[in-house]
Amino acid sequence: MVGHGDGVLFGLPDDPPLPDEQDRSVRKIAEKPPLPGEDVALEDVFEWFLNQDPDGTRFASVLRESLDQVLDGPRTMRFRYSELRKTEKTHVGTIVEINLGKEFDLADGEQMDYRIAGHDVDCKYSMVLGGWELPLESLGHLVLLTWADDDASRWAAGLWRVDPGHLGRGAGNRDLKRKMVKSGRGHIHWLWRDARLDENLLLHLPSPIVSKIFAPRSGQQRINELFRLVQRRIIRRDVVLTVAQQKDGPRRARMAREAKYLGGEGILVLGHYEWDVTVAKTLGLPVPRSGEWVSARVAPADDESPQTFYAEGHWWRLAEPDEWVSAAPKVPRSRSLSDAD
Amino acid sequence: MVGHGDGVLFGLPDDPPLPDEQDRSVRKIAEKPPLPGEDVALEDVFEWFLNQDPDGTRFASVLRESLDQVLDGPRTMRFRYSELRKTEKTHVGTIVEINLGKEFDLADGEQMDYRIAGHDVDCKYSMVLGGWELPLESLGHLVLLTWADDDASRWAAGLWRVDPGHLGRGAGNRDLKRKMVKSGRGHIHWLWRDARLDENLLLHLPSPIVSKIFAPRSGQQRINELFRLVQRRIIRRDVVLTVAQQKDGPRRARMAREAKYLGGEGILVLGHYEWDVTVAKTLGLPVPRSGEWVSARVAPADDESPQTFYAEGHWWRLAEPDEWVSAAPKVPRSRSLSDAD
Repeated sequence: MVGHGDGVLFGLPDDPPLPDEQDRSVRKIAEKPPLPGEDVALEDVFEWFLNQDPDGTRFASVLRESLDQVLDGPRTMRFRYSELRKTEKTHVGTIVEINLGKEFDLADGEQMDYRIAGHDVDCKYSMVLGGWELPLESLGHLVLLTWADDDASRWAAGLWRVDPGHLGRGAGNRDLKRKMVKSGRGHIHWLWRDARLDENLLLHLPSPIVSKIFAPRSGQQRINELFRLVQRRIIRRDVVLTVAQQKDGPRRARMAREAKYLGGEGILVLGHYEWDVTVAKTLGLPVPRSGEWVSARVAPADDESPQTFYAEGHWWRLAEPDEWVSAAPKVPRSRSLSDAD
Repeated sequence: MVGHGDGVLFGLPDDPPLPDEQDRSVRKIAEKPPLPGEDVALEDVFEWFLNQDPDGTRFASVLRESLDQVLDGPRTMRFRYSELRKTEKTHVGTIVEINLGKEFDLADGEQMDYRIAGHDVDCKYSMVLGGWELPLESLGHLVLLTWADDDASRWAAGLWRVDPGHLGRGAGNRDLKRKMVKSGRGHIHWLWRDARLDENLLLHLPSPIVSKIFAPRSGQQRINELFRLVQRRIIRRDVVLTVAQQKDGPRRARMAREAKYLGGEGILVLGHYEWDVTVAKTLGLPVPRSGEWVSARVAPADDESPQTFYAEGHWWRLAEPDEWVSAAPKVPRSRSLSDAD
């Protein structure tokens, strides 16, 4: 028998996730869709995106990956925008433009970034909703306006035909861009607005937890701390690589569940495998997708119930916050549900 | 006994490498070093870089990695600049700036990109030697001018204090940059010039070879073709990932040597392992560094010589172009010389 993990000291790991955190779907809004005949080209592009990405998951993952790419956590251990170099900070928009082009296999536009459904479309990103800066050459053209905010874990994407009447009147900044003014916002045709962005986990953890995770010198020990202190929450591959600081980070995550590490403390670490996903669903945990993990402390259950699973001769349930528990059952090798690692 | 590989049809794999290809060192030139007292700040930065990177290998690898990063071959199968999207083409310079900042852990400058040895330094990249465009705000400041040309497999880096007398006199392009004119070039203090860039292998192979490599549907078969058709030349990890189009590309490279694949055709595939490196040196092949491989067809030798190695009961040498050979000896597992994969 082993005592519970350190995590409960912080009241964190054993708190059940907020309902909002469990809801992993993107909210599709299509707010203010273009009126038929109002702007045929805009309508075409609007429809095209909704067909290509009916639930917004492709947009959501491009935006998440773009932010992760600039932070470059797996090589640099960074997870805050403020830690970026000057050259990197100005660079997020370009990365978003490039990655959307790749994800949707968009051809080059004649004058703008892309050619979509036969129309030229430029792409602009802003970290601040409404902060888009439009270059002079985009006047009268369609733009795909994107926003992703790592602090708020929210994103949006909409279409607008650039109208000088809604751009700042100043001489613009040095490279001749003009900022959209507030009156323009009401004219954006939103594909998705206030949609949920996969969270930048390390950014949102209390700083004593982050310090504890990064304290050990060995990558395996840091990964153990991560899954010990952050339970019942999805941990993405990028977080694992940022904490592990080594190429075989995912292997460290798989090892964390072993009896000599977290298994001995009653903690399961579940990945995108057949057995793991079934157990996560049964226990009511967020379900790991490809390249994701979730950990939780479990205890033997007295009886079978809808939220118990059977392993090693008896039933198991989630452990209570202050409960003393035995070692967790061994996670059997089961079929991987993806080729992510 | 198995016949020789297809490669000899193209006269490629069994051609010995050119002496130039064997020389993997960067040529350190430090041409036109600053005269003492001429420009103390420039001198400081010049010395700083030579101390940090005495043989230029750090610069060389940042430039190689930056070009690879933009091409993004492992995800897109691309290896030609012309295949990039419009948004990506304008983006190489930013990537070089960012990656140099990371590699040399450079602090942000006050007005320019970097602060180096107490001085503000901007960074500019051009694909064309001499094609640098300087923004107005860099006038009078130090710039690190970089060049890397994938066609020529050459790179350069030098320092210059931006002098309006050597910038084009026109109004500049729209974002107010002015191009350096030819008279400026003589004033660059070169840290390295005409240095050797690790080659973009796929770019330099004859197109029938490239077509043959990419023809098979399975990643393992494409990797086999790669090592069959491109022998005695260094194959970098990025090339393997581009050809394999899967995350476990390096494992495909290790498997290519097995008897059922290339081993049965007499072809060795050597990586950055103790045994492999020893054999590569003995045979006079280019020696794989971390994350690199080299393949070569071998045959039993009648006698020991300086260019033979001993395995499975007898001596082995490089095979002649038209020789019929037996299966290659099994490459034993030996100590990895890096943690690259």
